[in-house]
Amino acid sequence: MSWVEERLKEMGEILPRPPAAVGSYVPTVRTGNLIVTSGQLPVLAREIIFRGKVGKDLHEVDGSHAARICTINALSQIKASIGDLDKITRIVRVEGFVNSADGFTNQPKVLNGASDFLVELFGEAGKHSRFAVGVNELPLDAAVEVALWVQVSDD
Amino acid sequence: MSWVEERLKEMGEILPRPPAAVGSYVPTVRTGNLIVTSGQLPVLAREIIFRGKVGKDLHEVDGSHAARICTINALSQIKASIGDLDKITRIVRVEGFVNSADGFTNQPKVLNGASDFLVELFGEAGKHSRFAVGVNELPLDAAVEVALWVQVSDD
Amino acid sequence: MSWVEERLKEMGEILPRPPAAVGSYVPTVRTGNLIVTSGQLPVLAREIIFRGKVGKDLHEVDGSHAARICTINALSQIKASIGDLDKITRIVRVEGFVNSADGFTNQPKVLNGASDFLVELFGEAGKHSRFAVGVNELPLDAAVEVALWVQVSDD
Repeated sequence: MSWVEERLKEMGEILPRPPAAVGSYVPTVRTGNLIVTSGQLPVLAREIIFRGKVGKDLHEVDGSHAARICTINALSQIKASIGDLDKITRIVRVEGFVNSADGFTNQPKVLNGASDFLVELFGEAGKHSRFAVGVNELPLDAAVEVALWVQVSDD
Repeated sequence: MSWVEERLKEMGEILPRPPAAVGSYVPTVRTGNLIVTSGQLPVLAREIIFRGKVGKDLHEVDGSHAARICTINALSQIKASIGDLDKITRIVRVEGFVNSADGFTNQPKVLNGASDFLVELFGEAGKHSRFAVGVNELPLDAAVEVALWVQVSDD
Repeated sequence: MSWVEERLKEMGEILPRPPAAVGSYVPTVRTGNLIVTSGQLPVLAREIIFRGKVGKDLHEVDGSHAARICTINALSQIKASIGDLDKITRIVRVEGFVNSADGFTNQPKVLNGASDFLVELFGEAGKHSRFAVGVNELPLDAAVEVALWVQVSDD
């Protein structure tokens, strides 16, 4: 088992089977030493488990859990692509979209569910750049959508 | 004529004259083997032909047509930059923003207008990562905005 | 003093101390010759100075000032990372999110506050690709959020 997956296990997480793409695209593309994922939703066992608007239907803590699940799903997609998460040399970027009720402005707190998780898992290599924005609607009424850019070692 | 343009012709499409940028920026930038386009709107002959919110003013099928037109415009910008679309070795990423009515959550269907087109045109090399999100407003009230990242061969 | 900072001074601007990240991430990441910044808010002396929705609480000219401040903050983050802005060989991309009132569709005008500034400062190297979209909410009720991708020279 890889180092990163050992660490995930210690953190009480397990990589799910990677969710299917919701549309005619693929979950990851590699270009040079970069892998970019498609936008990931808070899906568990094929169901979106956090739906609705943060700040109305959901508390920001729920949004934060949702962001964490999106991120785990992104990692499961990356593993399906490169076989071993230990090849990740840097989390380059987290792109976060929060399905936001009018007046909800704590998108950073929601995305910390992704960011804290990545730093806990990867340490220094997990420190990433990020944008976090609110949007009025997301696919399938998901609460959060997260995409990752990661840098991987040469094959 | 390039292979990709032959294929476009078979698909009943023709590359338009690339739309002008709506602001003080440029349509594409190359960095290494990547070209990133600016956000493209559903413009035809200098007019935005799909305006308003998908799910209220427009059906999602219209949104899908709009996404296809944005994507063709992005390709016309890339051609203006590199001269020949056959130099594209991979569509890396589609970034899609859908001007969404409250309650409209089928952004993936809208963006399939871009994704299906790219896969039909480029085959395996057209398979891309993607994010699709809803937003409450877009420039000039466009229904969709699409940006592309593509990988090109060395000169 | 670097050439770019001389030019900034001529333009009447000064690089601020880089704003702290609003969350558990870092302001910039370098991958290869690219630096990507986190989303920057219109912060001056630790305060967000343009809050609310463009088109309702704020005029688009205010939004444009806000976009300029976000961009200066992004440059201050890049300087903190690479030490000298003269190492920037190209502004690759501006990503702009505008906190938009219903019916406000002039996001390009708002982002021109970023784009005009970059072209004035860097000349040809400042010409960038861009997306500009509206969103219904942004962190801390900021009027605009801007992220940059820049290309830098080899060390």
